Amino acid sequence: MRMVDLIEKKRDGKELTTEEINFIINGYTHDEIPDYQMSAFAMAVFFKDMTERERADLTMAMVNSGDTIDLSAIEGIKVDKHSTGGVGDTTTLVLAPLVAALDIPVAKMSGRGLGHTGGTVDKLEAVEGFHVEITNEEFIKLVNENKIAVIGQSGNLTPADKKLYGLRDVTATVNSIPLIASSIMSKKIAAGSDAIVLDVKTGAGAFMKTAEDAKELAHAMVSIGNNVGRKTMAVISDMSQPLGLAIGNSLEVKEAIDTLKGEGPADLEELCMALGSQMVYLAGKASSLDEAREKLKEVIANGKALEKFKLFLASQGGDASVVDQPERLPQAKFLIEVPAKEDGFVAELVADEIGTAAMLLGAGRATKESEIDLAVGLMLNKKVGDAVKVGDSLVTIHANRENVDDVLKKLYESIRIADHADAPTLVYGTVTE
Amino acid sequence: MRMVDLIEKKRDGKELTTEEINFIINGYTHDEIPDYQMSAFAMAVFFKDMTERERADLTMAMVNSGDTIDLSAIEGIKVDKHSTGGVGDTTTLVLAPLVAALDIPVAKMSGRGLGHTGGTVDKLEAVEGFHVEITNEEFIKLVNENKIAVIGQSGNLTPADKKLYGLRDVTATVNSIPLIASSIMSKKIAAGSDAIVLDVKTGAGAFMKTAEDAKELAHAMVSIGNNVGRKTMAVISDMSQPLGLAIGNSLEVKEAIDTLKGEGPADLEELCMALGSQMVYLAGKASSLDEAREKLKEVIANGKALEKFKLFLASQGGDASVVDQPERLPQAKFLIEVPAKEDGFVAELVADEIGTAAMLLGAGRATKESEIDLAVGLMLNKKVGDAVKVGDSLVTIHANRENVDDVLKKLYESIRIADHADAPTLVYGTVTE
Repeated sequence: MRMVDLIEKKRDGKELTTEEINFIINGYTHDEIPDYQMSAFAMAVFFKDMTERERADLTMAMVNSGDTIDLSAIEGIKVDKHSTGGVGDTTTLVLAPLVAALDIPVAKMSGRGLGHTGGTVDKLEAVEGFHVEITNEEFIKLVNENKIAVIGQSGNLTPADKKLYGLRDVTATVNSIPLIASSIMSKKIAAGSDAIVLDVKTGAGAFMKTAEDAKELAHAMVSIGNNVGRKTMAVISDMSQPLGLAIGNSLEVKEAIDTLKGEGPADLEELCMALGSQMVYLAGKASSLDEAREKLKEVIANGKALEKFKLFLASQGGDASVVDQPERLPQAKFLIEVPAKEDGFVAELVADEIGTAAMLLGAGRATKESEIDLAVGLMLNKKVGDAVKVGDSLVTIHANRENVDDVLKKLYESIRIADHADAPTLVYGTVTE
Repeated sequence: MRMVDLIEKKRDGKELTTEEINFIINGYTHDEIPDYQMSAFAMAVFFKDMTERERADLTMAMVNSGDTIDLSAIEGIKVDKHSTGGVGDTTTLVLAPLVAALDIPVAKMSGRGLGHTGGTVDKLEAVEGFHVEITNEEFIKLVNENKIAVIGQSGNLTPADKKLYGLRDVTATVNSIPLIASSIMSKKIAAGSDAIVLDVKTGAGAFMKTAEDAKELAHAMVSIGNNVGRKTMAVISDMSQPLGLAIGNSLEVKEAIDTLKGEGPADLEELCMALGSQMVYLAGKASSLDEAREKLKEVIANGKALEKFKLFLASQGGDASVVDQPERLPQAKFLIEVPAKEDGFVAELVADEIGTAAMLLGAGRATKESEIDLAVGLMLNKKVGDAVKVGDSLVTIHANRENVDDVLKKLYESIRIADHADAPTLVYGTVTE
């Protein structure tokens, strides 16, 4: 088999066999196929797409390129949730204890990553003492006992995907549905869960700028998951404005606590219900999404979800008293209001721009070496569709420096006030096949 | 400027500026743009094509990537001829003395190359003493005095094209009209002639399998030439079967001599007239293609073309007596006939397969290191459309080994006899703009 012939085959719109896809991914992982052939192949895929069968094969070839996590020692159906990324997305912090409160095992492997704010691990480290450096044995034991634990990323998962993603980034081949879908799904599948719930974001702060594109990606991923034997569902959700009100590490932990109490922002709560009900349904703990939703509401109302969060924090060394006294979380020195300059309605809160403003404060990492400031961030006081009067605070800046002119400038640029504006749709749909 | 953005621009079907194309080719030539970006770009061009302006810019960027030949010291309009390659193509050997006999300067730079038979330089070296290792000064002087000389390839012409061609070969991006056209035209333009006549082959023995594809390539190249100030015309000619009767180095020199005497095979003679008349017209020695053709016939009839060939051979150390005594050319030891096994008409002489049979005898180079046997080759005794009876010789094998079973097998595989067959069209058209 020669790579040049396989590039040509895909270039001419033909379907590659499983054996051919394995040859490509295996050869690329072991440096037997050079970057210049892989990039030409990726561009051919960009133009000619892949069939559902090819996409599933590509995903599994990437899964098999490295280590995979074995969660079989954990009892029950393990359901993982993945978001395609956004600004101020606190869903993971809420959903993990929420579904664990329904005896669904949450065995989460999580990283730090780059972005506007930290990853889930960074956020949880806003709780004093909390740590994810636990052994695999402890991790499995904790999940079996408490139904919830988080461990830091380890092992060489999907090296083919890492290598290919780096190449796509510099060859204008990122934006291809089969390549994006197989990249995300290979990581989730290698991480070992039985079922997967996807939150596919759309809008300014998301990779997929339109709901149609997001739906296409969601369908592609759900199809891959189901084709390789992992029950998968997806929600298409809005990321034109940040989700919830908090953008920042401590601030989002506080927001998660509020939401677990039933006192969170409406949009965050609703998205947690949409995603959580899919998780509960796929875990076999409800026979319909509606029934699942009722059960989630119940554990919020009766305090079990909040109790689960406390147990979770304490079990990994964290100071669980922050749940009742959130002021014990790291606090910023300066709170600076951002007043509206005109009357009207908030028409735009450009998500990625606002995320960048939070990063300017130190809430996220620009490079792997950056230090995160867990205390800083932004609290939105208005969301799209809200009425404002001159002088109303649009945003409260939580800063550890007094001069935040750069952040103010960025915020004013990303907030538009108009004569009229409606709140955007939050959930554009669910994808179940 | 970033290469990734330019790949994306072409991927999205947008037109690149002159500056952007120069950035790409310059960066690639100097190893500042890596192969993996260039191959993704080439694949994007494969799918999205280039405008005429982009093609001309790409060609000139490749011309400017290396040395160019300055023929300004040669008087008159220098016309070069280029063939896209085929089997048994003796046109260069005929055309060079033929148009030189009309006082048109033929300043030919030629190489050896790989293929079924040798390059023009190899063929001419079948004439004892002939050599192309002359200085630039001698070369110019010979052309000014005799109107004809051949020099071996030297200098670093179009390094960008060499590098890109090697990459395209292993990334399934060879078969792209803008890339093929700019590759050929950059080499011809760097070689310094004022006008260019192209012989674009079509059929089994050619790169372009259909006349439509060949016409598209011809239009692309003629347009590039005219857009960069070199008068260019093209002929689309058949290469489903070998041109003429001779395939082999000595054999083709002999065939060229016959043709210059007016005694060559009809198809070779006709193609030389079609190409030669364009050369004469572009050189300004005739006001129409018909008038040009008349002039060519005249110099064949009055012996001037043959005299020019003798002068040319002698001026570069060759034994010109071969023109009158072709038996002085290297002769093979064994002549082996290939008898027809059935009655009927020759329906196919698959050009590239027959070329491969000649290469098995040693007539061409498989690798740069191969030694060519100038004496061996094939003489076709029948061409497509000819009637045959059992036992008629289809081909005469000129071999320097007694056992030619492999060659016989190859030949029988590539010759098809049917109840009826017509001679194929030789010239599918001319392209002048």
